[in-house]
Amino acid sequence: MPGSGLEALDRATLIHPTLSGNTAERIVLTSGSGSRVRDTDGREYLDASAVLGVTQVGHGRAELARVAAEQMARLEYFHTWGTISNDRAVELAARLVGLSPEPLTRVYFTSGGAEGNEIALRMARLYHHRRGESARTWILSRRSAYHGVGYGSGGVTGFPAYHQGFGPSLPDVDFLTPPQPYRRELFAGSDVTDFCLAELRETIDRIGPERIAAMIGEPIMGAVGAAAPPADYWPRVAELLHSYGILLISDEVITGYGRTGHWFAADHFGVVPDIMVTAKGITSGYVPHGAVLTTEAVADEVVGDQGFPAGFTYSGHATACAVALANLDIIERENLLDNASTVGAYLGKRLAELSDLPIVGDVRQTGLMLGVELVADRGTREPLPGAAVAEALRERAGILLRANGNALIVNPPLIFTQEDADELVAGLRSVLARTRPDGRVL
Amino acid sequence: MPGSGLEALDRATLIHPTLSGNTAERIVLTSGSGSRVRDTDGREYLDASAVLGVTQVGHGRAELARVAAEQMARLEYFHTWGTISNDRAVELAARLVGLSPEPLTRVYFTSGGAEGNEIALRMARLYHHRRGESARTWILSRRSAYHGVGYGSGGVTGFPAYHQGFGPSLPDVDFLTPPQPYRRELFAGSDVTDFCLAELRETIDRIGPERIAAMIGEPIMGAVGAAAPPADYWPRVAELLHSYGILLISDEVITGYGRTGHWFAADHFGVVPDIMVTAKGITSGYVPHGAVLTTEAVADEVVGDQGFPAGFTYSGHATACAVALANLDIIERENLLDNASTVGAYLGKRLAELSDLPIVGDVRQTGLMLGVELVADRGTREPLPGAAVAEALRERAGILLRANGNALIVNPPLIFTQEDADELVAGLRSVLARTRPDGRVL
Repeated sequence: MPGSGLEALDRATLIHPTLSGNTAERIVLTSGSGSRVRDTDGREYLDASAVLGVTQVGHGRAELARVAAEQMARLEYFHTWGTISNDRAVELAARLVGLSPEPLTRVYFTSGGAEGNEIALRMARLYHHRRGESARTWILSRRSAYHGVGYGSGGVTGFPAYHQGFGPSLPDVDFLTPPQPYRRELFAGSDVTDFCLAELRETIDRIGPERIAAMIGEPIMGAVGAAAPPADYWPRVAELLHSYGILLISDEVITGYGRTGHWFAADHFGVVPDIMVTAKGITSGYVPHGAVLTTEAVADEVVGDQGFPAGFTYSGHATACAVALANLDIIERENLLDNASTVGAYLGKRLAELSDLPIVGDVRQTGLMLGVELVADRGTREPLPGAAVAEALRERAGILLRANGNALIVNPPLIFTQEDADELVAGLRSVLARTRPDGRVL
Repeated sequence: MPGSGLEALDRATLIHPTLSGNTAERIVLTSGSGSRVRDTDGREYLDASAVLGVTQVGHGRAELARVAAEQMARLEYFHTWGTISNDRAVELAARLVGLSPEPLTRVYFTSGGAEGNEIALRMARLYHHRRGESARTWILSRRSAYHGVGYGSGGVTGFPAYHQGFGPSLPDVDFLTPPQPYRRELFAGSDVTDFCLAELRETIDRIGPERIAAMIGEPIMGAVGAAAPPADYWPRVAELLHSYGILLISDEVITGYGRTGHWFAADHFGVVPDIMVTAKGITSGYVPHGAVLTTEAVADEVVGDQGFPAGFTYSGHATACAVALANLDIIERENLLDNASTVGAYLGKRLAELSDLPIVGDVRQTGLMLGVELVADRGTREPLPGAAVAEALRERAGILLRANGNALIVNPPLIFTQEDADELVAGLRSVLARTRPDGRVL
């Protein structure tokens, strides 16, 4: 079908997340390889966001296609409820236990990050319930956190736009200040970690530790543009939580599987959570999949004599697991963790050069997880909406990059090269140089 | 790796839904074709539940493996947020609009049924909010309904086991009596539909219609064993809801894509919902996927000027959509809707012959969606737990069949043959004849 026909069909039938009904334009992608994708008009784009921080090994990998096909022809899928299992799910579970920090030894499979966060919340509350502490139902999260759009994962998501109009969400959730050092207006002149720890302590006192199940957080906050906390934030948060018997849930959906230059951000910060939620990079998106890892202590309670009473149709999907195993093979064989560190540092340095432009407020980088905060005014740090920048980048420079509010989300495939990085920075410079303080691009 | 090694690794690492920590046994499946799967010991099993009502076209289809591999090598996946789209997602959306009842013209893609129900609940509440009726947040569901294990989908799931220990769930949910004709103790001597309609009317009065967003229901209730309501239930429910401006959400995750002998149970009952949630059979499980269909009226509101502010990483996954298209091709080419009707009717007749056994309380069949309710006593209809029956079926007859409470869930692949049906019935007879009223199998 010609591109124009597909675009008309799209407008008539497909509901896109976040797309206004007034927008007629459609970019219909049809192929991709490596860090590039192409649309129906044959136009090529550099994928600087790895779709949504997903495509670690790049697009169109023949090896993953072959592995998927072989597994589908042998056993595409069976559930893992009760005593039923499959070889691929077991092999992947063992592999993940080997890759992850030592205390995380038990694995529950999902089909994505939102499902994983729903399960993590269930595990945390059930853990306490089965230990006789049923009053521990509260979940602490942070404003500007993104954890998904289920009513649990969305309930702990700290953006008003994901709540407004959707009615009441998960009860017993409290939001803390996000540790975003650049947003120093949040911390009343205090040290970021000191401020956050004092607030956490006050919150625990106010709710009562005997009523709190867990705190959930992304090690590095993704939706505001790779906002890493100070190095002492996670160690001190974890210590305080554990002193009160509160579990730490780490949402590594974006940070996992090499994005930060480590297998998991837990390795970067030296803090092991009680429950670690992963997805995206586990299969590089070739098949939707995810894994929730936890400790023996948590697993023993939530499994227990009665079993864990929550399962998805596709928990332990054999093809997803086979593709994940092959994807991890590629990450290892091609040293993509090292590439994330090396090219990430290079890209971070190059992006920092954009700071000569007055609208570039902050540039942040950990491995190949980067973010640029745009501001209307450097002094006030007033956010500059990035939507028009992202659109101009696509139209004028052939670069796909997501903007969220005033943050440019730069999560390239882990195969990104220095040349890709240079192309991205050149495109960004040309667009940002033409961007006015109100966000419009000349 | 030998089977014993896999079993040990499984016990050490993998958390299975609903499996007690005290159970050492594992059945590690490694291959499958058609209606059969095999484990590490080379033992073959007849899959009489299509895994979980998923595998419409049977296991190990080379055609689907080939399509998946071709699509992965071309463009495995991209998101469909904003203006971005892909050819396969558009083609599948248009195909689904063609297959589904006429008023359902707009499609939102997910990776599974629980995600679909989360989105349906969000759509229903947002629809009213954007029309200026923000107080419409209540969701009506039914006891014994199964809609998933997210905190929204699980919040409207009507089994206590999915709530206990998990803390407070989605607020503003009310549960009605399930229309299970065999369970006549539920209806106080009244006609099933009259009773349910009176209760629905009273519930709407009690909560206030101006506070109710939607009612959600499976057209035929799956988790209690294919419990179909009387023919006038859905027409009268839909009429009453619509008279109050309350949306009807139909959870067709199990009933969709041919299971009832129609493309959708909406066709079977002649009632079109405002929002229809589908998954499972859409890809026969080869890649996790799902689709929520809705009307122009609902879509126009939830998209609107601002766009629908809820998206999953994998909404519109290109490989999942390609596999879905090929799966629908097979269902059409092999006339599997007809086979579901024909073999379903045959299997229903053969299962009904088991009614000479005193523990067989009720046998139900719509297409290839069947259920058997086991009872300790025919007069009292006291439930007989089916777990040991399912276990004995697997061990002694090589048949995989799920039991939930006292219900045997019989949802075979749509390629099931009369010979498969005979094998299933013979296995069931031999086990049920040895089953005592307390559920133990001699």
